[in-house]
Amino acid sequence: MTTLVFGHKSPDTDSTGSPIIWAWYLNNIKGVEAKAVILGEPNTEALFVLERWSLDKPEIISELVADTPVVIVDTNNPAELPDNINDADIQGIIDHHKLVGGLETKGPIDIRIEPVACTATLMWKMIGKDIAQMPQNIQGAMLSCILSDTLEFRSPTTTNEDKAIAWDLAQALDINIAEYAAEMFAAKSDVSAFSEAELLRMDSKEYAVDGKQFRVSVLETTSPAQVLARKDALMAAMPGVASEDGADQVLLFVVDILNEEATLLVPNDFVKSVAQKSFGASVDGDTVVLPGIMSRKKQIIPNLKV
Amino acid sequence: MTTLVFGHKSPDTDSTGSPIIWAWYLNNIKGVEAKAVILGEPNTEALFVLERWSLDKPEIISELVADTPVVIVDTNNPAELPDNINDADIQGIIDHHKLVGGLETKGPIDIRIEPVACTATLMWKMIGKDIAQMPQNIQGAMLSCILSDTLEFRSPTTTNEDKAIAWDLAQALDINIAEYAAEMFAAKSDVSAFSEAELLRMDSKEYAVDGKQFRVSVLETTSPAQVLARKDALMAAMPGVASEDGADQVLLFVVDILNEEATLLVPNDFVKSVAQKSFGASVDGDTVVLPGIMSRKKQIIPNLKV
Repeated sequence: MTTLVFGHKSPDTDSTGSPIIWAWYLNNIKGVEAKAVILGEPNTEALFVLERWSLDKPEIISELVADTPVVIVDTNNPAELPDNINDADIQGIIDHHKLVGGLETKGPIDIRIEPVACTATLMWKMIGKDIAQMPQNIQGAMLSCILSDTLEFRSPTTTNEDKAIAWDLAQALDINIAEYAAEMFAAKSDVSAFSEAELLRMDSKEYAVDGKQFRVSVLETTSPAQVLARKDALMAAMPGVASEDGADQVLLFVVDILNEEATLLVPNDFVKSVAQKSFGASVDGDTVVLPGIMSRKKQIIPNLKV
Repeated sequence: MTTLVFGHKSPDTDSTGSPIIWAWYLNNIKGVEAKAVILGEPNTEALFVLERWSLDKPEIISELVADTPVVIVDTNNPAELPDNINDADIQGIIDHHKLVGGLETKGPIDIRIEPVACTATLMWKMIGKDIAQMPQNIQGAMLSCILSDTLEFRSPTTTNEDKAIAWDLAQALDINIAEYAAEMFAAKSDVSAFSEAELLRMDSKEYAVDGKQFRVSVLETTSPAQVLARKDALMAAMPGVASEDGADQVLLFVVDILNEEATLLVPNDFVKSVAQKSFGASVDGDTVVLPGIMSRKKQIIPNLKV
């Protein structure tokens, strides 16, 4: 049976590109028949990357047949995976997020999690010398994943390994990192086609903090003004999204990639209090700028207090 | 703060030796202050190994102070770890068992799980060329862990990597594997000092199967007659151990290392039915021999049916 390789729901560049990388590795180096799939429509940056490197968009799967062999990449969180993920035949997990618990396997399998910025970085290390056999367009996906997850090395999640591997790939591919990253971020920043509810769910993860359930949404952009122009409509959409998704509150952080800061929307006194307690921010009005905040994983989640 | 490295409760050779190996690596190669500890008295084989290689017995810890940095080895199962394990600052997990879920980390950490027979095998791969700097007695612990977990390569969990690494270590240490393994197994087989309840808990893991909670106990021995001579007393002790530990039934498999078979004790009709359904065994009397059964992980647990 073909092994399916997939990342998290609401696929970004890493969760679209890493399955393609690993399926290539399984098919061409390990001799395991594998297929990259995705759990939803990729974001605009991921679509740009697929087109730029002439990669087919992976098939979107809406359900997972029990006992299907799968490799899970870029997450270990059951909430970000198909409901019946534990009925699958999980063959491997490759990830760079904190262990949240909840995934179970039928036997011992290959699990590799490291605190690097990007799944593709870890795959580069795991593939080792066989990288030499990787086609240029898969290497291009690899570079794109790293530039995306590190925000071109600006995110505090960035490690020296992420940087060194990206530089190595860029040199081999003759890519100017600054120019290419700017194109990727421009693609990600064009969110005009999306509704407010879609924007709130585009890059969003649920977390429980002291009994409150948050949907913590991030929009990384090089043109924050485009998003902030819609702030009233975004705040108006929050209660509906929260209630449909079983959350108490949506928090939207608009991350300004170039200026390395985030703007948090403050629709009510509860979020105002969260902003003050979590980031020591003094809030005046319905937005607050948080200088230096770029990473949900490293800066937002660990500090969240109610 | 010193990082504590430990394996599972009821430490066997791998859960005693692997913390020593990894603490050496952290202290001497990675520059991280670390200390191997154990969660209980080691079994007789592990004690033999410590003495044979002049290694200090690691300190036994009975509680874990919150926020202590820890590396967990040879398990990922919270039930086999201190109750408050998720309050620790878990820095890494190195294991070769199935993912059971339940451990949570505060941030992304290093996790490496592979389906090899032994934690020490995986550590050998992770340590890489720095093995050359490892003192002989730590290398001796490494070899001992592999011979113990593979039952000198007889267990079906054994991989080619386990074998190759053990041979490599034995050659470097000038150890005759057959002779040394026989000494280790003889040490493990001398269980005369233990009560029946201690024997039932010595190498035992809890598993839920279709709503029934089993304590699945294994005694690996080169002299099964020594254990089986006590079968009436062992069966008499089962209800008390089960009820104290919140299990419905203790299953005791006496694994005959040399003849590569297990004898399951059959104290009642429930276990008789489990033996028939799980192993297709035809039971007549209060024991049943299961030819070829050596591994709880690979042969007993996956087949258990009620």
